Amino acid sequence: MSEPALHPDAARIAFLLGTWRGAGKGEYPTIDPFAYEEEVRFTHNGKPFLAYTQRTWHPEKGFAMHAEAGYFRPLENGRIEIVVAQPTGIVEVHGGTVEGNKISLASSLVGKTATAKDVQVLERILEVEGDVLRYEVRMAAVGQPLQHHLGAELRKVDA
Amino acid sequence: MSEPALHPDAARIAFLLGTWRGAGKGEYPTIDPFAYEEEVRFTHNGKPFLAYTQRTWHPEKGFAMHAEAGYFRPLENGRIEIVVAQPTGIVEVHGGTVEGNKISLASSLVGKTATAKDVQVLERILEVEGDVLRYEVRMAAVGQPLQHHLGAELRKVDA
Repeated sequence: MSEPALHPDAARIAFLLGTWRGAGKGEYPTIDPFAYEEEVRFTHNGKPFLAYTQRTWHPEKGFAMHAEAGYFRPLENGRIEIVVAQPTGIVEVHGGTVEGNKISLASSLVGKTATAKDVQVLERILEVEGDVLRYEVRMAAVGQPLQHHLGAELRKVDA
Repeated sequence: MSEPALHPDAARIAFLLGTWRGAGKGEYPTIDPFAYEEEVRFTHNGKPFLAYTQRTWHPEKGFAMHAEAGYFRPLENGRIEIVVAQPTGIVEVHGGTVEGNKISLASSLVGKTATAKDVQVLERILEVEGDVLRYEVRMAAVGQPLQHHLGAELRKVDA
Protein backbone atom coordinates (compact mmCIF):
# COMPACT_ATOMS: atom_id res chain seq x y z
CA MET A 1 0.00 0.00 0.00
CA SER A 2 1.38 3.41 -0.95
CA GLU A 3 1.08 6.33 1.48
CA PRO A 4 -2.44 7.79 1.10
CA ALA A 5 -2.99 11.54 0.65
CA LEU A 6 -4.09 13.48 3.73
CA HIS A 7 -7.89 13.83 3.76
CA PRO A 8 -9.02 17.50 3.52
CA ASP A 9 -10.94 17.18 6.82
CA ALA A 10 -7.91 15.71 8.61
CA ALA A 11 -5.78 18.48 7.07
CA ARG A 12 -7.55 20.97 9.38
CA ILE A 13 -5.44 19.61 12.24
CA ALA A 14 -2.35 18.61 10.25
CA PHE A 15 -0.32 20.63 12.78
CA LEU A 16 -0.68 17.65 15.17
CA LEU A 17 0.80 15.04 12.78
CA GLY A 18 4.03 13.36 13.84
CA THR A 19 5.73 11.99 16.93
CA TRP A 20 6.23 14.23 19.97
CA ARG A 21 8.28 13.56 23.09
CA GLY A 22 8.80 15.42 26.33
CA ALA A 23 7.96 15.70 29.99
CA GLY A 24 4.78 16.25 31.97
CA LYS A 25 3.52 16.65 35.51
CA GLY A 26 0.35 15.42 37.17
CA GLU A 27 -1.42 16.54 40.31
CA TYR A 28 -4.80 16.14 41.99
CA PRO A 29 -6.05 16.71 45.54
CA THR A 30 -6.38 12.95 46.15
CA ILE A 31 -2.90 11.85 44.99
CA ASP A 32 0.77 12.75 45.32
CA PRO A 33 2.11 14.94 42.50
CA PHE A 34 4.05 12.95 39.88
CA ALA A 35 6.30 13.55 36.88
CA TYR A 36 6.43 11.56 33.67
CA GLU A 37 8.06 11.34 30.28
CA GLU A 38 5.80 10.92 27.31
CA GLU A 39 5.50 10.09 23.65
CA VAL A 40 2.47 11.21 21.65
CA ARG A 41 1.84 10.17 18.03
CA PHE A 42 -0.70 11.51 15.55
CA THR A 43 -0.96 9.55 12.30
CA HIS A 44 -3.39 9.41 9.36
CA ASN A 45 -4.54 6.78 6.89
CA GLY A 46 -6.22 8.93 4.25
CA LYS A 47 -9.55 9.06 6.06
CA PRO A 48 -11.15 12.15 7.71
CA PHE A 49 -9.51 11.78 11.13
CA LEU A 50 -6.15 11.47 12.86
CA ALA A 51 -5.30 8.48 15.04
CA TYR A 52 -3.87 9.42 18.46
CA THR A 53 -1.71 7.21 20.68
CA GLN A 54 0.09 8.18 23.83
CA ARG A 55 2.30 6.47 26.40
CA THR A 56 4.12 7.74 29.45
CA TRP A 57 6.89 6.26 31.53
CA HIS A 58 8.68 6.92 34.80
CA PRO A 59 11.39 9.58 34.27
CA GLU A 60 14.11 7.64 36.13
CA LYS A 61 12.97 4.02 36.25
CA GLY A 62 11.53 3.81 32.74
CA PHE A 63 8.56 1.59 33.53
CA ALA A 64 5.25 2.21 31.78
CA MET A 65 2.85 4.57 33.55
CA HIS A 66 -0.16 5.61 31.47
CA ALA A 67 -1.32 4.94 27.91
CA GLU A 68 -4.30 5.96 25.85
CA ALA A 69 -5.52 5.80 22.27
CA GLY A 70 -8.21 7.51 20.25
CA TYR A 71 -9.20 9.51 17.21
CA PHE A 72 -9.51 13.22 16.37
CA ARG A 73 -12.26 14.00 13.90
CA PRO A 74 -12.38 17.64 12.62
CA LEU A 75 -15.72 18.91 11.35
CA GLU A 76 -16.74 22.06 9.51
CA ASN A 77 -16.95 25.52 11.13
CA GLY A 78 -13.95 24.96 13.40
CA ARG A 79 -15.66 22.15 15.33
CA ILE A 80 -13.97 18.89 16.28
CA GLU A 81 -14.97 15.61 17.93
CA ILE A 82 -12.60 13.20 19.64
CA VAL A 83 -12.91 9.77 21.25
CA VAL A 84 -10.33 8.28 23.63
CA ALA A 85 -9.97 4.91 25.40
CA GLN A 86 -7.88 4.50 28.56
CA PRO A 87 -6.64 1.13 29.91
CA THR A 88 -7.96 2.01 33.35
CA GLY A 89 -11.44 1.34 31.95
CA ILE A 90 -12.34 4.89 30.90
CA VAL A 91 -13.69 6.09 27.55
CA GLU A 92 -14.12 9.73 26.59
CA VAL A 93 -16.32 11.48 24.03
CA HIS A 94 -15.48 15.15 23.49
CA GLY A 95 -16.72 18.01 21.39
CA GLY A 96 -14.75 21.20 20.93
CA THR A 97 -13.15 23.78 18.71
CA VAL A 98 -10.07 24.25 16.52
CA GLU A 99 -8.75 27.83 16.56
CA GLY A 100 -5.49 28.25 14.71
CA ASN A 101 -3.20 25.58 16.17
CA LYS A 102 -5.21 25.25 19.39
CA ILE A 103 -7.81 22.57 20.14
CA SER A 104 -10.16 22.98 23.14
CA LEU A 105 -12.24 19.98 24.17
CA ALA A 106 -14.84 19.21 26.84
CA SER A 107 -16.27 15.77 27.50
CA SER A 108 -19.90 15.16 26.61
CA LEU A 109 -19.50 11.65 28.02
CA VAL A 110 -17.04 9.82 30.27
CA GLY A 111 -17.83 6.09 30.23
CA LYS A 112 -16.50 3.65 32.81
CA THR A 113 -16.14 -0.09 33.29
CA ALA A 114 -17.34 -1.53 36.61
CA THR A 115 -13.87 -1.27 38.19
CA ALA A 116 -12.84 2.14 36.80
CA LYS A 117 -12.25 5.24 38.89
CA ASP A 118 -15.16 7.68 39.18
CA VAL A 119 -14.17 10.27 36.55
CA GLN A 120 -17.03 12.67 35.80
CA VAL A 121 -15.73 15.35 33.45
CA LEU A 122 -12.57 15.79 31.40
CA GLU A 123 -11.35 18.81 29.48
CA ARG A 124 -8.39 18.70 27.13
CA ILE A 125 -6.52 21.60 25.56
CA LEU A 126 -3.76 21.00 22.98
CA GLU A 127 -1.70 23.73 21.32
CA VAL A 128 1.15 23.58 18.82
CA GLU A 129 3.70 26.38 18.52
CA GLY A 130 6.46 25.60 16.02
CA ASP A 131 7.86 22.22 17.03
CA VAL A 132 6.37 22.33 20.54
CA LEU A 133 3.09 20.64 21.54
CA ARG A 134 1.66 21.66 24.91
CA TYR A 135 -1.42 20.12 26.44
CA GLU A 136 -3.45 20.38 29.59
CA VAL A 137 -5.97 17.88 30.99
CA ARG A 138 -8.52 19.10 33.50
CA MET A 139 -10.63 16.62 35.44
CA ALA A 140 -13.59 16.33 37.82
CA ALA A 141 -13.32 12.96 39.58
CA VAL A 142 -13.84 11.14 42.90
CA GLY A 143 -15.94 14.00 44.28
CA GLN A 144 -13.49 16.78 43.41
CA PRO A 145 -14.46 19.81 41.28
CA LEU A 146 -13.13 20.27 37.74
CA GLN A 147 -9.49 21.35 37.98
CA HIS A 148 -6.02 21.04 36.49
CA HIS A 149 -4.73 17.44 36.45
CA LEU A 150 -2.00 17.05 33.79
CA GLY A 151 0.27 19.36 31.82
CA ALA A 152 3.13 18.55 29.45
CA GLU A 153 5.40 20.14 26.89
CA LEU A 154 6.55 17.91 24.04
CA ARG A 155 8.86 18.45 21.07
CA LYS A 156 8.48 17.04 17.59
CA VAL A 157 10.98 14.22 17.08
CA ASP A 158 10.32 13.49 13.41
CA ALA A 159 10.65 16.22 10.78
CA MET B 1 13.81 0.31 28.45
CA SER B 2 14.08 -3.48 28.60
CA GLU B 3 11.03 -5.62 27.77
CA PRO B 4 8.84 -5.76 30.89
CA ALA B 5 7.53 -9.07 32.23
CA LEU B 6 3.93 -9.93 31.43
CA HIS B 7 1.66 -8.89 34.33
CA PRO B 8 -0.10 -11.89 35.96
CA ASP B 9 -3.52 -10.35 35.24
CA ALA B 10 -2.66 -9.77 31.58
CA ALA B 11 -1.31 -13.34 31.43
CA ARG B 12 -4.91 -14.59 31.73
CA ILE B 13 -5.39 -13.59 28.07
CA ALA B 14 -1.83 -14.14 26.85
CA PHE B 15 -3.32 -16.29 24.07
CA LEU B 16 -4.25 -13.01 22.31
CA LEU B 17 -0.71 -11.55 22.27
CA GLY B 18 0.89 -10.97 18.88
CA THR B 19 0.01 -9.79 15.39
CA TRP B 20 -2.80 -11.48 13.47
CA ARG B 21 -3.77 -11.08 9.81
CA GLY B 22 -6.58 -12.41 7.69
CA ALA B 23 -9.91 -11.72 6.03
CA GLY B 24 -13.36 -10.77 7.24
CA LYS B 25 -16.85 -10.06 6.02
CA GLY B 26 -19.43 -7.52 7.13
CA GLU B 27 -23.16 -7.38 6.65
CA TYR B 28 -26.14 -5.52 8.05
CA PRO B 29 -29.72 -4.97 6.82
CA THR B 30 -29.02 -1.30 6.05
CA ILE B 31 -25.82 -1.72 3.99
CA ASP B 32 -24.36 -3.82 1.15
CA PRO B 33 -22.28 -6.78 2.33
CA PHE B 34 -18.53 -6.12 2.20
CA ALA B 35 -15.25 -7.98 2.52
CA TYR B 36 -12.04 -6.75 4.11
CA GLU B 37 -8.50 -7.72 5.02
CA GLU B 38 -7.38 -7.05 8.54
CA GLU B 39 -4.49 -6.79 10.95
CA VAL B 40 -5.08 -7.09 14.71
CA ARG B 41 -2.34 -6.53 17.31
CA PHE B 42 -2.37 -7.28 21.02
CA THR B 43 0.63 -5.95 22.96
CA HIS B 44 1.55 -5.47 26.61
CA ASN B 45 3.69 -3.05 28.59
CA GLY B 46 3.97 -4.90 31.91
CA LYS B 47 0.71 -3.51 33.27
CA PRO B 48 -2.50 -5.49 33.98
CA PHE B 49 -4.03 -5.16 30.50
CA LEU B 50 -3.35 -5.77 26.81
CA ALA B 51 -3.45 -2.96 24.27
CA TYR B 52 -5.56 -3.74 21.18
CA THR B 53 -5.24 -2.09 17.77
CA GLN B 54 -6.95 -3.08 14.58
CA ARG B 55 -7.05 -1.86 10.97
CA THR B 56 -8.79 -3.14 7.89
CA TRP B 57 -8.27 -2.40 4.22
CA HIS B 58 -9.99 -3.10 0.91
CA PRO B 59 -9.04 -6.59 -0.34
CA GLU B 60 -8.23 -5.47 -3.89
CA LYS B 61 -7.66 -1.72 -3.74
CA GLY B 62 -5.75 -1.62 -0.47
CA PHE B 63 -7.20 1.63 0.88
CA ALA B 64 -7.94 1.93 4.60
CA MET B 65 -11.44 0.93 5.68
CA HIS B 66 -11.92 0.68 9.45
CA ALA B 67 -9.66 1.10 12.47
CA GLU B 68 -10.14 0.86 16.21
CA ALA B 69 -8.07 0.82 19.38
CA GLY B 70 -8.64 -0.13 22.98
CA TYR B 71 -7.62 -2.13 26.00
CA PHE B 72 -8.48 -5.58 27.40
CA ARG B 73 -8.42 -5.75 31.19
CA PRO B 74 -8.83 -9.26 32.71
CA LEU B 75 -10.19 -9.46 36.25
CA GLU B 76 -10.48 -12.29 38.74
CA ASN B 77 -13.03 -15.12 38.45
CA GLY B 78 -12.91 -15.28 34.64
CA ARG B 79 -14.28 -11.77 34.23
CA ILE B 80 -12.91 -9.21 31.79
CA GLU B 81 -13.53 -5.57 30.91
CA ILE B 82 -12.65 -3.89 27.65
CA VAL B 83 -12.81 -0.37 26.25
CA VAL B 84 -12.64 0.50 22.54
CA ALA B 85 -12.57 3.77 20.57
CA GLN B 86 -13.63 3.95 16.93
CA PRO B 87 -12.76 6.84 14.55
CA THR B 88 -16.40 7.10 13.49
CA GLY B 89 -17.03 8.70 16.89
CA ILE B 90 -18.01 5.59 18.83
CA VAL B 91 -16.66 4.39 22.20
CA GLU B 92 -17.48 1.03 23.76
CA VAL B 93 -17.40 -0.23 27.35
CA HIS B 94 -17.84 -4.00 27.69
CA GLY B 95 -17.97 -6.55 30.46
CA GLY B 96 -17.65 -10.24 29.81
CA THR B 97 -16.02 -13.57 30.47
CA VAL B 98 -12.84 -15.48 29.64
CA GLU B 99 -13.42 -19.24 29.25
CA GLY B 100 -10.36 -21.10 28.02
CA ASN B 101 -9.25 -19.22 24.92
CA LYS B 102 -12.65 -17.64 24.33
CA ILE B 103 -13.70 -14.12 25.33
CA SER B 104 -17.40 -13.14 25.25
CA LEU B 105 -18.27 -9.48 25.67
CA ALA B 106 -21.44 -7.38 25.78
CA SER B 107 -21.50 -3.60 25.84
CA SER B 108 -22.66 -1.90 29.03
CA LEU B 109 -22.24 1.43 27.22
CA VAL B 110 -21.89 2.62 23.62
CA GLY B 111 -20.98 6.31 23.60
CA LYS B 112 -21.30 8.53 20.54
CA THR B 113 -20.14 11.91 19.32
CA ALA B 114 -22.80 14.24 17.87
CA THR B 115 -22.15 13.04 14.30
CA ALA B 116 -21.72 9.30 14.99
CA LYS B 117 -24.07 6.61 13.74
CA ASP B 118 -26.77 5.45 16.17
CA VAL B 119 -25.18 2.27 17.55
CA GLN B 120 -27.07 0.97 20.58
CA VAL B 121 -25.53 -2.39 21.56
CA LEU B 122 -22.38 -4.26 20.57
CA GLU B 123 -21.34 -7.81 21.39
CA ARG B 124 -17.89 -9.16 20.66
CA ILE B 125 -16.71 -12.75 20.75
CA LEU B 126 -13.03 -13.63 20.22
CA GLU B 127 -11.61 -17.16 20.20
CA VAL B 128 -8.10 -18.46 19.62
CA GLU B 129 -7.45 -22.00 18.39
CA GLY B 130 -3.76 -22.69 17.77
CA ASP B 131 -2.52 -19.91 15.49
CA VAL B 132 -6.03 -18.88 14.40
CA LEU B 133 -8.01 -15.99 15.92
CA ARG B 134 -11.70 -15.83 15.03
CA TYR B 135 -14.02 -13.06 16.11
CA GLU B 136 -17.60 -12.03 15.67
CA VAL B 137 -19.17 -8.61 16.24
CA ARG B 138 -22.92 -8.38 16.77
CA MET B 139 -24.65 -5.01 16.70
CA ALA B 140 -27.98 -3.29 17.35
CA ALA B 141 -27.95 0.01 15.44
CA VAL B 142 -30.07 2.45 13.41
CA GLY B 143 -33.31 0.82 14.60
CA GLN B 144 -32.28 -2.77 13.77
CA PRO B 145 -32.30 -5.56 16.40
CA LEU B 146 -29.07 -7.08 17.73
CA GLN B 147 -27.61 -9.33 15.02
CA HIS B 148 -24.45 -10.53 13.33
CA HIS B 149 -22.43 -7.69 11.75
CA LEU B 150 -18.77 -8.77 11.34
CA GLY B 151 -16.85 -12.04 11.29
CA ALA B 152 -13.20 -12.72 10.50
CA GLU B 153 -10.57 -15.43 10.70
CA LEU B 154 -7.00 -14.29 11.26
CA ARG B 155 -3.66 -16.12 11.51
CA LYS B 156 -0.76 -15.28 13.77
CA VAL B 157 2.02 -13.67 11.73
CA ASP B 158 4.68 -13.42 14.44
CA ALA B 159 5.86 -16.47 16.36
